[in-house]
Amino acid sequence: MMKLEAQWIVGFVDGEGCFHIGISKNNTLKLGFQVLPEFVIVQHERDVKLLYNIKSFFGCGVVRKNHGDRMCYRVRDLTHLSKIIVPFFEKHQLKSLKKVDFLKFCKVIRLMKEKKHLEPEGLIKIRKIKAEKFKIESNPFREEKGEN
Amino acid sequence: MMKLEAQWIVGFVDGEGCFHIGISKNNTLKLGFQVLPEFVIVQHERDVKLLYNIKSFFGCGVVRKNHGDRMCYRVRDLTHLSKIIVPFFEKHQLKSLKKVDFLKFCKVIRLMKEKKHLEPEGLIKIRKIKAEKFKIESNPFREEKGEN
Repeated sequence: MMKLEAQWIVGFVDGEGCFHIGISKNNTLKLGFQVLPEFVIVQHERDVKLLYNIKSFFGCGVVRKNHGDRMCYRVRDLTHLSKIIVPFFEKHQLKSLKKVDFLKFCKVIRLMKEKKHLEPEGLIKIRKIKAEKFKIESNPFREEKGEN
Repeated sequence: MMKLEAQWIVGFVDGEGCFHIGISKNNTLKLGFQVLPEFVIVQHERDVKLLYNIKSFFGCGVVRKNHGDRMCYRVRDLTHLSKIIVPFFEKHQLKSLKKVDFLKFCKVIRLMKEKKHLEPEGLIKIRKIKAEKFKIESNPFREEKGEN
């Protein structure tokens, strides 16, 4: 196994990671919709070893075929997301504007932990968070702009 | 300015960086060809600040428009490549198989420092290095395979 450092993980995720909030139809659920947040890193299959190293670093998630010659590391389990993934990126902040997606992701995870996604108002709230567009005002690095 | 750590740079470059060896026609040169190695990181323009931070980290290179809504950080100067970029990634090793590209890149930089690219044999050698295909046997992580 390769030793990965926290800052390497942050850099790699700033480049290749994705904090995705899926909302899909599911008629077996009361509201008819399922909220599926996932943390994903996609790589060419030749670097699958790296994905296994990341899995080992976090101690959760799975490595799966993505599409074509792509593989992915994926965390979908709500407990793993809220207890491992979210605290990690709260401690080791992303440097790119992927941070904006991460902050939206955190809001959704928090609502889901409170089971709000199972109520109509909660689902509407999650849809709104997901739809929020990136605005210059919400740029977390805005205050540093003058220094460049 | 944002403080970037070496391992963050390595992780980000493992994801987004490119060690490119360009060989293009140039009739003003004796051999008719120009060898142009470059280290490049392309990003969406919304993260251009990050590219300026990387430029400041290395203390060399330029930030330029790439294509469409993409910007890039780029180092082409042979002295900067051989004195700054190459030593950095020799000290802080890449974790992905981009390392294979980096090793080819180093070989070309070394030949260019010895002015070998200005002689026919040197140019042929550089073409060969550039054309080398990734082989499992040249996988620098191969020996660790059994541990997974």
